[in-house]
Amino acid sequence: MKPFRADILAIGSELLHGGRVDSNSLFIADILASCGIRVAQKMALSDELRDIQSALRATCKQADVVIVTGGLGSTVDDRTREAVATTFGRKLAARPKAMQILKRQLHKRGRIVTPLLARQALIPLGAQVLDNGVGTAPGFYLQEGSTHVFVIPGVPREARDMMDLQVQPILKRRLKGTTVLWSHAFNTVGLPETDIQQLVAPLLSASSGIALSLLASTKGVKVTLSCWDPKDSKLSRSTKSKSFLQGDSLLHEVRKRLGPCLFSEGDETMEEVVGQLLSSRKWTIGLAESCTGGLIAHRITEVPGSSGYLERGTVTYSNKAKEELLGIARALLRKNGAVSAQVAEAMAKGIRAKSRVDLGVSVTGIAGPGGGSAKKPVGLVYMAIDGPQGRKSQRCQFGGDRTEIKFRSSQAALNMIRCYLLQVKM
Amino acid sequence: MKPFRADILAIGSELLHGGRVDSNSLFIADILASCGIRVAQKMALSDELRDIQSALRATCKQADVVIVTGGLGSTVDDRTREAVATTFGRKLAARPKAMQILKRQLHKRGRIVTPLLARQALIPLGAQVLDNGVGTAPGFYLQEGSTHVFVIPGVPREARDMMDLQVQPILKRRLKGTTVLWSHAFNTVGLPETDIQQLVAPLLSASSGIALSLLASTKGVKVTLSCWDPKDSKLSRSTKSKSFLQGDSLLHEVRKRLGPCLFSEGDETMEEVVGQLLSSRKWTIGLAESCTGGLIAHRITEVPGSSGYLERGTVTYSNKAKEELLGIARALLRKNGAVSAQVAEAMAKGIRAKSRVDLGVSVTGIAGPGGGSAKKPVGLVYMAIDGPQGRKSQRCQFGGDRTEIKFRSSQAALNMIRCYLLQVKM
Repeated sequence: MKPFRADILAIGSELLHGGRVDSNSLFIADILASCGIRVAQKMALSDELRDIQSALRATCKQADVVIVTGGLGSTVDDRTREAVATTFGRKLAARPKAMQILKRQLHKRGRIVTPLLARQALIPLGAQVLDNGVGTAPGFYLQEGSTHVFVIPGVPREARDMMDLQVQPILKRRLKGTTVLWSHAFNTVGLPETDIQQLVAPLLSASSGIALSLLASTKGVKVTLSCWDPKDSKLSRSTKSKSFLQGDSLLHEVRKRLGPCLFSEGDETMEEVVGQLLSSRKWTIGLAESCTGGLIAHRITEVPGSSGYLERGTVTYSNKAKEELLGIARALLRKNGAVSAQVAEAMAKGIRAKSRVDLGVSVTGIAGPGGGSAKKPVGLVYMAIDGPQGRKSQRCQFGGDRTEIKFRSSQAALNMIRCYLLQVKM
Repeated sequence: MKPFRADILAIGSELLHGGRVDSNSLFIADILASCGIRVAQKMALSDELRDIQSALRATCKQADVVIVTGGLGSTVDDRTREAVATTFGRKLAARPKAMQILKRQLHKRGRIVTPLLARQALIPLGAQVLDNGVGTAPGFYLQEGSTHVFVIPGVPREARDMMDLQVQPILKRRLKGTTVLWSHAFNTVGLPETDIQQLVAPLLSASSGIALSLLASTKGVKVTLSCWDPKDSKLSRSTKSKSFLQGDSLLHEVRKRLGPCLFSEGDETMEEVVGQLLSSRKWTIGLAESCTGGLIAHRITEVPGSSGYLERGTVTYSNKAKEELLGIARALLRKNGAVSAQVAEAMAKGIRAKSRVDLGVSVTGIAGPGGGSAKKPVGLVYMAIDGPQGRKSQRCQFGGDRTEIKFRSSQAALNMIRCYLLQVKM
């Protein structure tokens, strides 16, 4: 049996010309995959009625499931309800269940239903109203021919709530007996794409039905193996269970080949990995950031519970701050310059001593666009770590703009912490 | 004359199932708009040959310009070259100009052309090879019927370089005489969408041809006015020039109605606005962050030249760090708790005194998901500012998850700095 095909339509002119990307499709694709449905195509459309109408008509011809997001608000540019109703020849009506949801959600905010807001309760006749546990706009579900059409809000938290609690149960009930799909991602840092392909691709030729995709970003290279039809492959439908993953020779072999470059699997972030390692050792950490400007502290504190290991962070942009918060000698700064291995090591040692933590970590470099020279070009970054196993430092040369250099530096520094905690070579 | 219509096809299975969004389309849309071309639709497709082929066929029927991004690398999952060639019945050949680009770019990295990498020089016969000034993969341009098809890399820096230096000049030459389009964005913070609509929408009914779009995010609400056909509107094609913008009564009236909620226009970020205000006053700033965990320092240091005003940042997660880096009395922490107006004010005063800056800014709150109580729920955040005009503090209650609460807190704190510098009420 072939996996069902889904298309995602994201409505909103801001997605085309407003400097905004559609991020909802990421978790929508994950939820659909867990129901055995493969996303074949994502589209972003303007708020123009005829654009939405023609996309709806086209997609209903080819997809089994269509998820429409956005355009359910109460302002003039919200036209999704009208577009769906006219495309499928249905009337819009103020549906009692929709009005109930709207009243309840507005009541929570101490507000009442105004005529403008009441537009949100207009739902095509014959469609099933979907509850919104987070925001005010109800969604809806209808069947058009053999295609299942779900219309949900564009606000990420509302979309996620409705996908989880409303759309997923309906899909599981309606599309019984489909194949179970799987994909497995390995997150690596420090190796270029082509090297990774040469390591991993030879493992796959024998296992038909498994596709390899490589994605390079400032975080490193993400290596994804995916399979849309288990019958074609060596791996059975139990692939998702942990015991199988651990036992499976292919995934095991990929892990072995990637070696210490592999920092996590699936959705786990570098900062989560570092947080777990610190927690399990009961080690505390202090940060001395210069060119990363607080980004490492920001990333570490994205993880709930990070207050258990992050004692303090410092953004020592000025030399005065380096002297006062880290105890760096003015002579050392004058002799080597702030961007040097010597100063990076002194910063790591300084923050460790001042904050009395297990690990002191530092980064100093030139994020650009100004401030570079022939000897010390933009992108030159030194980082160091000081801890119970001694002091280590590394010199990196990163490409990209200021934002990219800051991010790559933060990723390399977090990886340095990871390697130090695991006692593996960087 | 109607504006030309463009479609953007982003190729890559990772855009559907790899947890990655297509961000290239943002600047591609801006560049196209500057050439008088409106993006009607964006699509993300898998690396499957037949998916790419059918999308290419469909889009060439309706669009004047098609921009295809991604799938030009040298690994197995890069199939865009093959898909374009087969769809339009052309042969792929190793083109000398493409090979030259590849050699030159690899040489810069101290590498040579391997058989695997040489795949990147395979370009459909009859297509014009487009230079890549940043990476190794050449792009190409071909005309199919009346549609102009450009195929460019997916790596953002390479895509931007090729759009600027290769695609834009060709489009300006080929599509002469089109209408000039414009859109203008106002970035606001502190007012809900519906309130903004009630302020702005009444101004527009009289000016036909101008569309209003509102987009709420953790940054605030972005209000965009756009016009695709200047003949239909009151505003002429000179709208883009600064003098006209300043003189124009509509934009002026919108500005007046939004009042102090309007923090910037166009692409200008809150951190850029704050940076300019600090620079123009020659004021320095020091940060004492608790729940934002370094995010404010990170945002401020995204702006080139921020070392001119950011003296230091501190992430005082522990009480010990609050005592040592900010001089907060233990008794004050014990009496009021770390999340309180009193501690926020003492933190702002403390960082100002310790770092001897003009402005001391602090944030303390509960980012969650744990740590909340009935009296001090998750999302409760206090922030304060201490400077030459005295000390101010505010209490906020934010919704959302940890990441959202951190971001909203950083946005509110930066806005507090902006209002303090402009001496307007928050």
